[in-house]
Amino acid sequence: MTSTASRPAVADGVKQGLAQLRIETPSWGYANSGTRFKVFAQPGVPRSPEEKIADAAVVHRLTGAAPSVALHIPWDRVDDYAALAAYATDQGVALGTINANVFQDDDYKLGSVTNPDPRVRRKAIDHLLECVDIMDATGSRDLKLWFSDGTNYPGQDSIRARQDRLTEALRETYDRLGESQRLILEYKLFEPAFYTTDVPDWGTAFAHCLELGPRAQVCIDTGHHAPGTNIEFIVAFLLRAGKLGAFDFNSRFYADDDLMVGAADPFQLFRILHEIVQGGALDPALGIAYMLDQCHNIETKIPAIIRSVMNVQEATAKALLVDADALAAAQRSGDVLAANAVLMDAYNTDVRPLLAQLREESGLDPDPIAAYHRSGYQQQIERDRVGGRQAGWGA
Amino acid sequence: MTSTASRPAVADGVKQGLAQLRIETPSWGYANSGTRFKVFAQPGVPRSPEEKIADAAVVHRLTGAAPSVALHIPWDRVDDYAALAAYATDQGVALGTINANVFQDDDYKLGSVTNPDPRVRRKAIDHLLECVDIMDATGSRDLKLWFSDGTNYPGQDSIRARQDRLTEALRETYDRLGESQRLILEYKLFEPAFYTTDVPDWGTAFAHCLELGPRAQVCIDTGHHAPGTNIEFIVAFLLRAGKLGAFDFNSRFYADDDLMVGAADPFQLFRILHEIVQGGALDPALGIAYMLDQCHNIETKIPAIIRSVMNVQEATAKALLVDADALAAAQRSGDVLAANAVLMDAYNTDVRPLLAQLREESGLDPDPIAAYHRSGYQQQIERDRVGGRQAGWGA
Amino acid sequence: MTSTASRPAVADGVKQGLAQLRIETPSWGYANSGTRFKVFAQPGVPRSPEEKIADAAVVHRLTGAAPSVALHIPWDRVDDYAALAAYATDQGVALGTINANVFQDDDYKLGSVTNPDPRVRRKAIDHLLECVDIMDATGSRDLKLWFSDGTNYPGQDSIRARQDRLTEALRETYDRLGESQRLILEYKLFEPAFYTTDVPDWGTAFAHCLELGPRAQVCIDTGHHAPGTNIEFIVAFLLRAGKLGAFDFNSRFYADDDLMVGAADPFQLFRILHEIVQGGALDPALGIAYMLDQCHNIETKIPAIIRSVMNVQEATAKALLVDADALAAAQRSGDVLAANAVLMDAYNTDVRPLLAQLREESGLDPDPIAAYHRSGYQQQIERDRVGGRQAGWGA
Amino acid sequence: MTSTASRPAVADGVKQGLAQLRIETPSWGYANSGTRFKVFAQPGVPRSPEEKIADAAVVHRLTGAAPSVALHIPWDRVDDYAALAAYATDQGVALGTINANVFQDDDYKLGSVTNPDPRVRRKAIDHLLECVDIMDATGSRDLKLWFSDGTNYPGQDSIRARQDRLTEALRETYDRLGESQRLILEYKLFEPAFYTTDVPDWGTAFAHCLELGPRAQVCIDTGHHAPGTNIEFIVAFLLRAGKLGAFDFNSRFYADDDLMVGAADPFQLFRILHEIVQGGALDPALGIAYMLDQCHNIETKIPAIIRSVMNVQEATAKALLVDADALAAAQRSGDVLAANAVLMDAYNTDVRPLLAQLREESGLDPDPIAAYHRSGYQQQIERDRVGGRQAGWGA
Repeated sequence: MTSTASRPAVADGVKQGLAQLRIETPSWGYANSGTRFKVFAQPGVPRSPEEKIADAAVVHRLTGAAPSVALHIPWDRVDDYAALAAYATDQGVALGTINANVFQDDDYKLGSVTNPDPRVRRKAIDHLLECVDIMDATGSRDLKLWFSDGTNYPGQDSIRARQDRLTEALRETYDRLGESQRLILEYKLFEPAFYTTDVPDWGTAFAHCLELGPRAQVCIDTGHHAPGTNIEFIVAFLLRAGKLGAFDFNSRFYADDDLMVGAADPFQLFRILHEIVQGGALDPALGIAYMLDQCHNIETKIPAIIRSVMNVQEATAKALLVDADALAAAQRSGDVLAANAVLMDAYNTDVRPLLAQLREESGLDPDPIAAYHRSGYQQQIERDRVGGRQAGWGA
Repeated sequence: MTSTASRPAVADGVKQGLAQLRIETPSWGYANSGTRFKVFAQPGVPRSPEEKIADAAVVHRLTGAAPSVALHIPWDRVDDYAALAAYATDQGVALGTINANVFQDDDYKLGSVTNPDPRVRRKAIDHLLECVDIMDATGSRDLKLWFSDGTNYPGQDSIRARQDRLTEALRETYDRLGESQRLILEYKLFEPAFYTTDVPDWGTAFAHCLELGPRAQVCIDTGHHAPGTNIEFIVAFLLRAGKLGAFDFNSRFYADDDLMVGAADPFQLFRILHEIVQGGALDPALGIAYMLDQCHNIETKIPAIIRSVMNVQEATAKALLVDADALAAAQRSGDVLAANAVLMDAYNTDVRPLLAQLREESGLDPDPIAAYHRSGYQQQIERDRVGGRQAGWGA
Repeated sequence: MTSTASRPAVADGVKQGLAQLRIETPSWGYANSGTRFKVFAQPGVPRSPEEKIADAAVVHRLTGAAPSVALHIPWDRVDDYAALAAYATDQGVALGTINANVFQDDDYKLGSVTNPDPRVRRKAIDHLLECVDIMDATGSRDLKLWFSDGTNYPGQDSIRARQDRLTEALRETYDRLGESQRLILEYKLFEPAFYTTDVPDWGTAFAHCLELGPRAQVCIDTGHHAPGTNIEFIVAFLLRAGKLGAFDFNSRFYADDDLMVGAADPFQLFRILHEIVQGGALDPALGIAYMLDQCHNIETKIPAIIRSVMNVQEATAKALLVDADALAAAQRSGDVLAANAVLMDAYNTDVRPLLAQLREESGLDPDPIAAYHRSGYQQQIERDRVGGRQAGWGA
Repeated sequence: MTSTASRPAVADGVKQGLAQLRIETPSWGYANSGTRFKVFAQPGVPRSPEEKIADAAVVHRLTGAAPSVALHIPWDRVDDYAALAAYATDQGVALGTINANVFQDDDYKLGSVTNPDPRVRRKAIDHLLECVDIMDATGSRDLKLWFSDGTNYPGQDSIRARQDRLTEALRETYDRLGESQRLILEYKLFEPAFYTTDVPDWGTAFAHCLELGPRAQVCIDTGHHAPGTNIEFIVAFLLRAGKLGAFDFNSRFYADDDLMVGAADPFQLFRILHEIVQGGALDPALGIAYMLDQCHNIETKIPAIIRSVMNVQEATAKALLVDADALAAAQRSGDVLAANAVLMDAYNTDVRPLLAQLREESGLDPDPIAAYHRSGYQQQIERDRVGGRQAGWGA
């Protein structure tokens, strides 16, 4: 019952582990979003990729843990990507993953890379190739592919033919990648397609990545599973197979709710990070990209993203607190209650004081949310960002 | 194994039952719709309430079973509702249920009738009262209430206080109703709220309706349940309690997919209609409103609605074919397989010839879809409805 | 970020709240249990109701919070219930809720109180009445009714007729109750019935209890819901309606897994107890019975039950830590993030030191699990309870 | 609307397709089964492997489509498997798949091949190897492996270490197989393990089979998925990858309900068989094993199995009726409604007359259920099979 977190040696290990944790924030998380019923606009929302990057930089300055920002093309299309990268550097952040978007043109009504019409498929693949061009310009390592492709009605299209088309598109895109670039394939059970989805689960993504080659990896979005799916199992399995490439963190109670990570099931987030820590995957050498992918529909966006970064940090700190030797011993001896207790002891620890201390040692405010509110940034953007067109999904 | 449908006496009973079936189509089903990712616009979509009514009238002329059209306020707001009703009559249909909409104003970000802000609650209730005014003008019997109200995060608001506010709003609205008007309360598990929904399930709707009085009834939307929910149980329970007021028919594989009714699980639709038939609820005297509530995101809207009407007719015909005496005998004797076989015998019957015959006897084309395609209506509206603003959610 | 738990006034309030918490343990939780695939017998398991009570008394001596034990009839049938009650008193615990069991006779293959055969229904009702006789003898307040009744195949029986039969059985049983006795009706989505269940959800249980009268209340088993169900909503709703009678605590990842409460989703348990605390329902005057209903299939039973009691205590302590004023203020102002933060601040607090202190103040060991292991009780029962027939489901 | 089934050429194609369909029935389907709450014994249930085979032979004689019976070891352990095979041949059926059972010894409480204890793992692997010995004796082609292995509590064991152990066990077993033998790996989401399952989904089974080699294939049990899983997608994907080995047919509303195939969602069964037909997989050369895996807990077992065989036949007949050219044309043109209509036209056809005709042409009774009831077999076994121990799970 003595708090493990208070022992100095343990605390040092946790701090070293946390120092490795880098969370990428998404440019579109700073923009307006909503449901099919309504997008509630918020004051101060960015009107350009540069303003999104400025917001992301604020998050990084306050947390010290969010050094890069992911882009979504075409939402963040600019004329000069090198200039955008330079702007980001000036702000103190880097451009990260390039997220391709092939779901918002009218042409994509029946799919993009799996569309029955070869003309539409060509257009979609060309967009993916353009994204690699952008990666060359921004210096991004990862191309993240999520396809909304699927069907709404039984019989609408051939499941198998769509897999053939998907294979072709992935191959052409993969072959275009540079040596240090990766293709990250995301899966999702449903939405916007309501009968079949062409990459519905980790098995499908895994099979395609295996066929593509070593630079193709799977992305786990924590909101993209069927009810009851054990996500940490998938984490452990893909890590063991060398095929875990990235996370899209968020949380959900029902479907792809895109709430703040850790808000719906903080214990699940801890279990996921326990697998990460056990698998040594905080080490940047393993190349796992930790990203947020959230929609802050009703809460203020920047503090929501700060809170999300802190939630991942807290879960990681707890995972680092797990007494691995005691756990392994209990597991070996088949002591179910003792093994569970070792895990719960770490989870039940309040790691917030430790994180506050770590922030202070790094020259940060121990309470990033309070610091944000004191900074006046929110008032400033609400004042300044008037006129123009606020960014949103599709903007 | 002799097809029960072919016996003349049985066929007559089925025809009499079907003659009672009236399916209301929703004005917004003819308009553009989509997901949060994209609304794919379709050519020929109506630009006014009148054009929606015209489309609904086409569905009725071809099926003979869709004599009324539901309105959504404010989507179908006009200056003169009596004139709109007269226009509908001219077209051969009636105005039906008035659906209140309190989810698309910026004020409703944190709820409408359950909003913590009393000013917003007042505004929302005023809208509900306005809808009753409209009912007076249109001669509509039913006010359908669906609230998007809820919360996204634990702690965001008090679950209990929101119930108190809901009770107040429902009471004021109910008290405003005329003697022959009804309040129909709809429930939905989630979306757009992602943590709590203020009317999430039939139990909540039932409890409120019970408290309100005899003219408050529950609406079952077939897409609004948790996975695994047995909808026909709810139908049977509410019918027995005298509290089933209406259906919003559609179908779903995952969440509230709003696909064509009968497209995802035709056997479930049959089981629902079996409860309806068993409960005598096809009889208009019981006052159950059978409505479609669907989004035709990728398929052509008018033929999709015709197909949906036909799907309900086919499921009803099969339910009417169930040999009630044989079923009751098998149930009484505890013969599980025999009882199930009686039900399946009806389900497995191909009722399309019977329905074609019934249409011909009523002077309709036996194949309404083919008749629609031959009619040239689709080409005409695509040609004519150019310019103006196509109707959609929020339009 | 200053731990609220460390402020003396707050700690006192938490202690007073916790002092009200009484958790009933189930006699069958000490017995062998398993899945349909296998029951793994454990050494030292009780062979009689007395030995179950002895185990329950150990849990109470170590936790100070489990002063009563629920019985399951016929599993705990004895000749002299007054003697059994006296034995319990000697051991330092009381006999609690009587749980009726009408699912393990061959007669109940097609149901008990809803069986199509009136003879079987009579037998089942007679068993319920016998349970009330037992309550008279044991001085128990509550009769808990869970029915496995339902059907496996569409058509097997009439949903509505089964409701009629259920109504009759409940009425006769309710009318037999004494003035200070209650009927507690439990619901469950599925298992062992796989198509319909006659009391599948809280709405059904609520409607029956409402019809029965004020001494009929609903029991929430935390493992008996469809995926995605918001249990705390049901808690708040039933509390508001004065119809929440009892909890069967346990936890689940998939179906009715019957794992230790708090093991699968500790945050959900906290949210449930937050509603309890908000509704003032820790107060014994409200009469909510807090019971465990778990199966310790692979873990040692007594320490698993101690751990479960502690899990409920920890969740309750956190719920008591919620700053109600700050929460209400944030809710009123519509500050989503602030309101959520107030709740999470309490949840993230490590309450174990406070609970250890509370135990010591009550003369208990601060670490009940360690105290159990030191006590030698487990070794003693494994040595002593040899021969005879170990209790289990159906034993 | 002209019934496609009535056209002679179409009917011939359907009959040829159906002639290829062979459904294996499971020996344990004839035995007693139940839920964790109760096993309801039925009169006439077999008391030996021979009596199970005799029942299976009756099903084949009446349906002409169930020529083999699967064994479960140790439930069907005999001294002389060659003699058992000869007995089966005499009865007119063959012995089919050997199903290994490593979940009912006390040793397997914490797992079999993934148990932390190497001694238990050795024992489990030895059982798998023994099963291959049995295959050599019976001439069986397939070894079906389903593991109940998993954990109930977070932390209980290392997810990754269990995968390592699983890999070892599968490898040793695979290497023992003869050239014409196959390893069929089954997956299941949960039950009896309630936190992790070591082979929870098709992705895990697929990855292991890929690593093992060409004679390792995946088995799809239609009741083993998370809610909302699109099973026909998995069928199409595994067929395309050459890794679909077998089906365990049954149906479910909630979890692994093990009801009669086609009883819960006949449209889903049709969609699955549509993928089979589209993939040419009725052809025995593809080696897909079609098996039932059901529990007839409350319905009479032999007619339930006959009904199940007929349900698969009916779904297959409908799938064979799909007008593949019209479907492909509609899909190519992007006509969503037309493509769906082609599929639904086949589904809505009543294929029972065609199947009755096919049976008569094969010298069978057109109504196998009626023929069974007339045969007196049920009365005979109820009379004869008295005394001895009725077979059941674990018997």
